[in-house]
Amino acid sequence: MGSLETERTTTGWAARDPSGTLSPYTYTLRNTGPDDVFVKVICCGICHTDLHQAKNDLGMSNYPMVPGHEVVGEVVEVGSDVTKFAVGEIVGVGCVVGCCRNCRSCDTDNEQYCLKKIWSYNDVYTDGKPTQGGFAGSMVVDQKFVVKIPDGMAAEQVAPLLCAGVTVYSPLRHFGLMGSGLRGGILGLGGVGHMGVKMAKAMGHHVTVISSSDKKKVEALEHLGADEYLVSSDTEGMQKSADSLDYIIDTVPVFHPLEPYLTLLKVDGKLILTGVINTPLQFVSPMIMLGRKSITGSFIGSMKETEDMLKLCKEKGLTSMIEVVKMDYINTAMERLEKNDVRYRFVVDIAGSKLDQ
Amino acid sequence: MGSLETERTTTGWAARDPSGTLSPYTYTLRNTGPDDVFVKVICCGICHTDLHQAKNDLGMSNYPMVPGHEVVGEVVEVGSDVTKFAVGEIVGVGCVVGCCRNCRSCDTDNEQYCLKKIWSYNDVYTDGKPTQGGFAGSMVVDQKFVVKIPDGMAAEQVAPLLCAGVTVYSPLRHFGLMGSGLRGGILGLGGVGHMGVKMAKAMGHHVTVISSSDKKKVEALEHLGADEYLVSSDTEGMQKSADSLDYIIDTVPVFHPLEPYLTLLKVDGKLILTGVINTPLQFVSPMIMLGRKSITGSFIGSMKETEDMLKLCKEKGLTSMIEVVKMDYINTAMERLEKNDVRYRFVVDIAGSKLDQ
Repeated sequence: MGSLETERTTTGWAARDPSGTLSPYTYTLRNTGPDDVFVKVICCGICHTDLHQAKNDLGMSNYPMVPGHEVVGEVVEVGSDVTKFAVGEIVGVGCVVGCCRNCRSCDTDNEQYCLKKIWSYNDVYTDGKPTQGGFAGSMVVDQKFVVKIPDGMAAEQVAPLLCAGVTVYSPLRHFGLMGSGLRGGILGLGGVGHMGVKMAKAMGHHVTVISSSDKKKVEALEHLGADEYLVSSDTEGMQKSADSLDYIIDTVPVFHPLEPYLTLLKVDGKLILTGVINTPLQFVSPMIMLGRKSITGSFIGSMKETEDMLKLCKEKGLTSMIEVVKMDYINTAMERLEKNDVRYRFVVDIAGSKLDQ
Repeated sequence: MGSLETERTTTGWAARDPSGTLSPYTYTLRNTGPDDVFVKVICCGICHTDLHQAKNDLGMSNYPMVPGHEVVGEVVEVGSDVTKFAVGEIVGVGCVVGCCRNCRSCDTDNEQYCLKKIWSYNDVYTDGKPTQGGFAGSMVVDQKFVVKIPDGMAAEQVAPLLCAGVTVYSPLRHFGLMGSGLRGGILGLGGVGHMGVKMAKAMGHHVTVISSSDKKKVEALEHLGADEYLVSSDTEGMQKSADSLDYIIDTVPVFHPLEPYLTLLKVDGKLILTGVINTPLQFVSPMIMLGRKSITGSFIGSMKETEDMLKLCKEKGLTSMIEVVKMDYINTAMERLEKNDVRYRFVVDIAGSKLDQ
């Protein structure tokens, strides 16, 4: 794999400390190895996790850190062993860029659960160098972790699907919840939640949005196509909906009580957590036992699921609702995201921001 | 269904108040309706729930209350529509004696999850009268909630199977955990736990007992046939066993942290709660999400599962470990049970206590 070529550089926007403020940062990219795809980034979504990582909210941040894991780009070079991708194709990169390839998770196409997976950024690659994400001009990524974007899908529309989209698709598929006629709940209407409503509707489910206020009621029902809207503090409405849902995808990334939502589930219903919350969550055992309910969770999705999710989105004409911004707006966008002031995902127009020029 | 016969009486031992002390109590039994089976009780196991109910630990107790829901008896009379049972046959009765027969749970042979189920005791029957359990000379029970005991099984051996046995069998079956070669954990070694070890071993699993002390190590390994024994406070042992179990059946009926046990589970592993605990249990969401683990629970089992479990026990020669006592020892037995001083289940010899004479 050794190469005599001079190493290439790219410019990204990096956080330098827990203030989380991003600014331009130029760094080296590895040469394109036999299995690598060299990608010129077109656009990249901003996920709530990017905020957590930039600000060291999870206590695991290393700086300088270039976030971004909802990456769409164009292939500009492929390694000698790369057969799946050709120069000029539009591809996606998500949260993970490496895994051990040798454990039960890797062997069963569940590489996102590999205990040795390598994150797209804020991690260390097999060459010992830090990984850096998609808020940058270019990336070099092993072909296993690159997905082809189906022809005809707009790059900025696809970006949020690569994390938010697959985060809802994967558990619906894994837990056998893709059949039409199911009754689903989406708790929290942010980037992941809005994709949850669209994805569940595309599968033919009856979808109830559950939110802490009625601020998003009209848009949930009229723009996203939800069937019902429940405000969690509306005791009467919540009681009326007890024992009515087959599943709830819980996208809330901060502490919240679980019992009101467990009550909404039917016997055998599943509460599926997708938000990383470091404060302990609570429940009493009879609420689970006496209805054989499950509290479970899911973490993004596999590359295989990502491919299949993109096919579904293309087939159903399913799009995300986004606000496209330029790179120099990123710090403002992060501030707005922290205040939940976005409908529903920021996507950074990287190509239009001309970082590598 | 009206009958002109004089109503029959039976004598049981009832708790009269939250002291939980039981003493003889004579009450009326309904006449044998068309679908009823009149059962002379032979023996009845003592479950931890009987203690909770007798002492009003769950705040829902009505007195006088005759506990007992692991009942084995002999059929002495059957109603005109009863075809499954004949006089002289040995039968069992468990925790539930009624359900609505009209909901999704009832329609799918999961009547134990019917929201209108009627408990064997401390509940109100369809005739408006209190239900009373198996610490009594006789019971009248709808045939739907009576199970035939396979020929050749000893009554006192079978009694604990009707609650403790099916409590472990049902989730293993429902959650697809009956295949051989699985690695299971049994948390807590009481009445349910000891049946869990035996049942899981009968299914060909590798079984690890997890306990708060090493007091039961020898008996778990040598008498019950467990493969490994972990003490939960042994940090090193617990760490070595991380990511090793497909499931844990958690039989502990009091508050305990969940995280040490979630850590023991593999990706997609299940922590199955079977103990009613009113203190909230806690976990942090990444422990669930990043391994797609589930916290779930299970409540006894259906009549169908009870039948199939009894067949399995007969086929595998699976027995419970019990201490047989007479009725006049019941208060001492309850005290000893509260102190976990029993290997592993008390069974009251009702026939030998001659309550109805």
